[in-house]
Amino acid sequence: MSDPNAIVFEAIAFAARAHQGQLRKDEKTPYVSHVFRVCTVVRHVFGFDDPQMLAAALLHDTIEDTTTDCDDITEHFGPVVAKWVGALTKDARLPHDAREAEYARVLAVADWQVKVLKLADVYDNAGDCRSFAPNGRRKTLAKSRFYLDAVRSGVPADAHRVIAIVEARLAELEASLTS
Amino acid sequence: MSDPNAIVFEAIAFAARAHQGQLRKDEKTPYVSHVFRVCTVVRHVFGFDDPQMLAAALLHDTIEDTTTDCDDITEHFGPVVAKWVGALTKDARLPHDAREAEYARVLAVADWQVKVLKLADVYDNAGDCRSFAPNGRRKTLAKSRFYLDAVRSGVPADAHRVIAIVEARLAELEASLTS
Repeated sequence: MSDPNAIVFEAIAFAARAHQGQLRKDEKTPYVSHVFRVCTVVRHVFGFDDPQMLAAALLHDTIEDTTTDCDDITEHFGPVVAKWVGALTKDARLPHDAREAEYARVLAVADWQVKVLKLADVYDNAGDCRSFAPNGRRKTLAKSRFYLDAVRSGVPADAHRVIAIVEARLAELEASLTS
Repeated sequence: MSDPNAIVFEAIAFAARAHQGQLRKDEKTPYVSHVFRVCTVVRHVFGFDDPQMLAAALLHDTIEDTTTDCDDITEHFGPVVAKWVGALTKDARLPHDAREAEYARVLAVADWQVKVLKLADVYDNAGDCRSFAPNGRRKTLAKSRFYLDAVRSGVPADAHRVIAIVEARLAELEASLTS
């Protein structure tokens, strides 16, 4: 594959097949729309054009939520994308609280690209919560803050603006809870 | 909606719901992956960041291939996006040859944004044909040339590079037919 963007287009088709039949919390929107949105946040809102980052954004939920494993990702998209997707995947063998704590620890020391991808995930999930009841919205926003704090350190200076974008979005959504 | 990008994210969810259950020609990849790829071509390969163009890319097949009509698009995405999607829609009431001829006539005088969107559609469909048998590939590439010729005039100077990108892709795929 000599075209560096080929993995992005292959990842779009791969994600659409892997998440086929899954729905978002509204129980009517196909789940794959979330991973498309995360890719669009990375490219269009945050401004990163690295094809490996875009592919990893599209694939970020495949190991956790589909039958795809790390080797599948490596085979189709290479070891770097597989490593990033792995770092974005929670350990389903652990009970909830231990799983979240371990996930935060991994995110804190992950490559900066993983941190940016997690911020894009937070950006989209937080935006989605507008349609939730106040309790669900409160929970989602608290989780968003938890992940934001987990990735905050170690983000290079030229990606600090990404943290500022996500901070502003969370602040706006939090304000809508009390208004 | 004060965030100008809100229509892009809404269009991703809208397209995923509208095309739910539809598959590409390989009969295993969800159709919506095509419209997301066209949006990614417009943003990432061609370099346009106008949210109305990105939304129209995502919605370009909804009137033609789903139960969505022009009024639905206007209501959710405004009259400009609806006009562009309309110009990208073939008239299903006409027999094949008349329909294609009328489609080419509309594309030839459409807004330049519509031409760029059609070029992104051609770019993705042409790329997809790599997995087709020689006959299918030949047909797809001939159709791609037909659309390219239809939109060629009236593209502003700063979008000429887009025509060059699509020309190069078609030439490469055509070469693979004879090699």
